[in-house]
Amino acid sequence: MTYASLTQSDLAFFESVMPGRVFSGQDILTDYDHDEMTEYGHFRPEAVLQALTAEEVSKVLAYCNEHCIAVTPRGAGTGLCGGCVAIHGGIVITTEKMKRVLEVDTENMTATVEPGVLLMEFPKSLEGTGLFYPPDPGEKTATMGGNAMTNAGGMRAVRYGVTRDYILGMQVVLADGSIIEIGGKNVKTSSGYSLLHLMIGSEGTLGILTRLTVKLVPEPAVTCSLLVPFQDLDSCIGAVPHVLRLGVNPTAVEFMEREVIGCAETYLGKQFPDTAADAYLLIRLDRQHANEIQPAADALVDLLLSLGAKDVLMADTEERLSSLWDARGAFLEAIKGSTSTMDECDVVVPRKLIPDFVRKMREIGEKEAIRIRVFGHAGDGNLHIYVCRDELPEPVWKEKIARVMDFLYAAAKSLGGNVSGEHGIGHAKRPYLRSSVGDRQMDLMRGIKAAFDPNGILNPGKVIS
Amino acid sequence: MTYASLTQSDLAFFESVMPGRVFSGQDILTDYDHDEMTEYGHFRPEAVLQALTAEEVSKVLAYCNEHCIAVTPRGAGTGLCGGCVAIHGGIVITTEKMKRVLEVDTENMTATVEPGVLLMEFPKSLEGTGLFYPPDPGEKTATMGGNAMTNAGGMRAVRYGVTRDYILGMQVVLADGSIIEIGGKNVKTSSGYSLLHLMIGSEGTLGILTRLTVKLVPEPAVTCSLLVPFQDLDSCIGAVPHVLRLGVNPTAVEFMEREVIGCAETYLGKQFPDTAADAYLLIRLDRQHANEIQPAADALVDLLLSLGAKDVLMADTEERLSSLWDARGAFLEAIKGSTSTMDECDVVVPRKLIPDFVRKMREIGEKEAIRIRVFGHAGDGNLHIYVCRDELPEPVWKEKIARVMDFLYAAAKSLGGNVSGEHGIGHAKRPYLRSSVGDRQMDLMRGIKAAFDPNGILNPGKVIS
Repeated sequence: MTYASLTQSDLAFFESVMPGRVFSGQDILTDYDHDEMTEYGHFRPEAVLQALTAEEVSKVLAYCNEHCIAVTPRGAGTGLCGGCVAIHGGIVITTEKMKRVLEVDTENMTATVEPGVLLMEFPKSLEGTGLFYPPDPGEKTATMGGNAMTNAGGMRAVRYGVTRDYILGMQVVLADGSIIEIGGKNVKTSSGYSLLHLMIGSEGTLGILTRLTVKLVPEPAVTCSLLVPFQDLDSCIGAVPHVLRLGVNPTAVEFMEREVIGCAETYLGKQFPDTAADAYLLIRLDRQHANEIQPAADALVDLLLSLGAKDVLMADTEERLSSLWDARGAFLEAIKGSTSTMDECDVVVPRKLIPDFVRKMREIGEKEAIRIRVFGHAGDGNLHIYVCRDELPEPVWKEKIARVMDFLYAAAKSLGGNVSGEHGIGHAKRPYLRSSVGDRQMDLMRGIKAAFDPNGILNPGKVIS
Repeated sequence: MTYASLTQSDLAFFESVMPGRVFSGQDILTDYDHDEMTEYGHFRPEAVLQALTAEEVSKVLAYCNEHCIAVTPRGAGTGLCGGCVAIHGGIVITTEKMKRVLEVDTENMTATVEPGVLLMEFPKSLEGTGLFYPPDPGEKTATMGGNAMTNAGGMRAVRYGVTRDYILGMQVVLADGSIIEIGGKNVKTSSGYSLLHLMIGSEGTLGILTRLTVKLVPEPAVTCSLLVPFQDLDSCIGAVPHVLRLGVNPTAVEFMEREVIGCAETYLGKQFPDTAADAYLLIRLDRQHANEIQPAADALVDLLLSLGAKDVLMADTEERLSSLWDARGAFLEAIKGSTSTMDECDVVVPRKLIPDFVRKMREIGEKEAIRIRVFGHAGDGNLHIYVCRDELPEPVWKEKIARVMDFLYAAAKSLGGNVSGEHGIGHAKRPYLRSSVGDRQMDLMRGIKAAFDPNGILNPGKVIS
């Protein structure tokens, strides 16, 4: 597929549709040439268009479809796999200015928002309703639209599920400019192929999201967290299936190791409540009523001690809670800050196999003499792995990182895992997706892509080739 | 699309693949020419093949794909929209004999089963594990594979979600005979288009399911149900958003009216605990620990009385529970038994709009002078509507039912609803799906179909035209 370069006449057309919101040449901020992983390269679009309505997006897509212009949809640009960068040039359409909360329907427990609403802003619209939106990815400056299109996960997934589980309806502009409404406020449906679920996690390759309706749930009133030190990672992760089977329905079950906690202490300049052990679980419980949380916490403490936990530190005050979760929230930035550069992956494996994966990870780290850090969502088998360049010279790093990544993805596959638990594929993880699912499934994905976007103008070079 | 009629040589090939399990001519049981809605016609396949392995299905599909033979996949045949009947002739492949539970993995909390395992049989495999599989459609003689392929719902959906929410992995045979493995035991993923979610609810038009891996959750230990009489349906349904916002996380929230209860009493020969009111909510709570259920039930009782409930009858003994739920479970058969024949629909609407839908339903019932009965899942806006023929002569019935169904589906659409909450589309609901989602979405679905099954051999005439 070759795409047309933009002409003055193209720019004039875009300007007629989105007056004052078309940026080209020197007016394009450098922000638009990368996402959070600058390691995956800088790609300058030929123009950036700030959309405000679905109708504008429709007109531009119809035009680009006719003129074979590559279109890269973009939210806040906080992705980690190069999903929103214009690797084939053409235009970036950003929906970051479409940030109205259109409706909070407390009776149907839904909210309808434009895609550019930030995850950190949305809770303000729900204040006083007693409702909340559970998906809780670490990156709070991400947009809700971006979360939908990558099926973002986050720390509450153990209890509440991921973004996919909260999307009820979408307005989407297709490559040919058609505007379709998928789903709505209905909480269940068996009405033909689920275009909704196909669109979720499709990373802007099948359409541009211009509105979404999400499900809300009653906000829990009380919370407590348990920090649980273990002798080693095996006993730490080994406890997780027991915790989940206990039926106390934890909101989050995170694991972390001493080294990563150390990074966070340095980064935040704050002490973590305990650093004597090699491995920790951090478990969060939420309940509607104060009298429900203590019995659940007690049952959990008994269980954890019987499984070899060295101690259980309970946090139910604001201060104690924030010392734990601030540290957890800072891991990514802390590791980033500890090295010159790094590469990351977020594979998911069946949850009891986390120690097997970590063992393999350590083997390759030792073999390649490279520092690898890991933490993640023990409750759903989703690991965040950071391979640190530290002082390695560029050519050595390039060689090593290629071998290490190949090894890690192969290890995940050998354990029945998937390429990405929550970050997506973008352009950076495409080869790993292909080797993970195989040619036949890639063929099916290409067939789906062709049905939605026969000219291949939408986010070319992402997810599939 | 025209399909080839079977020849002796085709039958010989099938016999070579599935010796002793190919039935043709007089050997085909009449069961195979319909599902539970005989009202939608009888269609005799040219042969019925009982598959035992994915490899057998693969060989047969590759052959049928080459010879353009229509293939209708079938589980237990308990569907309600003609999804598993061979309306274009050719062969039926039934997976009803593939009924092994292959693995119960208590650590990852998954089970891997063949598609023919019956919903009523599966719990036996989980005994003693403390785990259970929440999807709970009324038809317990359905297969788990059929449930997956229609995204079946059921009464526990308010708390636990529908079948879609429990499927982690699938082995599927595609139209060309390829066998693919989608997903696995991972509980989250953002790894390319979700072929898993596309396959769920696709009613056998995109592939034949030969194995599935489902998610299990801790089994609740204690349960109680509340029967709540209301003055009228408006106040009854009006209470539902409040119940859901309370945060007690009910498992089921069903609504029913006096007339339907009367049908069930007659059918079962058993008295319902209360029949003095016009409309009832039936609410079920489940908890892990005995000490958690009373506070939740108390909060619910207070709320319901403040919302105008005439009373709240609590059931926590086996006998009391079964008198309620047996009646609820018998509604479909009871209504069927009360009339010569009937037609049904299972539209879903945003949950607070149930009374609006029921009002419209009553209007058309009065206008057409036809008896219509309704009950359903108040907690998820999913209604079961039965239009009864009673003593109407055939031509009058045919005319009336066409007008009534057109009206009901249009009413659901006008309220932002969908065609089917849990039964699916099959061949009977196709025109309504088209008018509900519109031509552009039907085009996308056809494009998806073409990517999976370019020759259109799989379950032709279902879901899409």
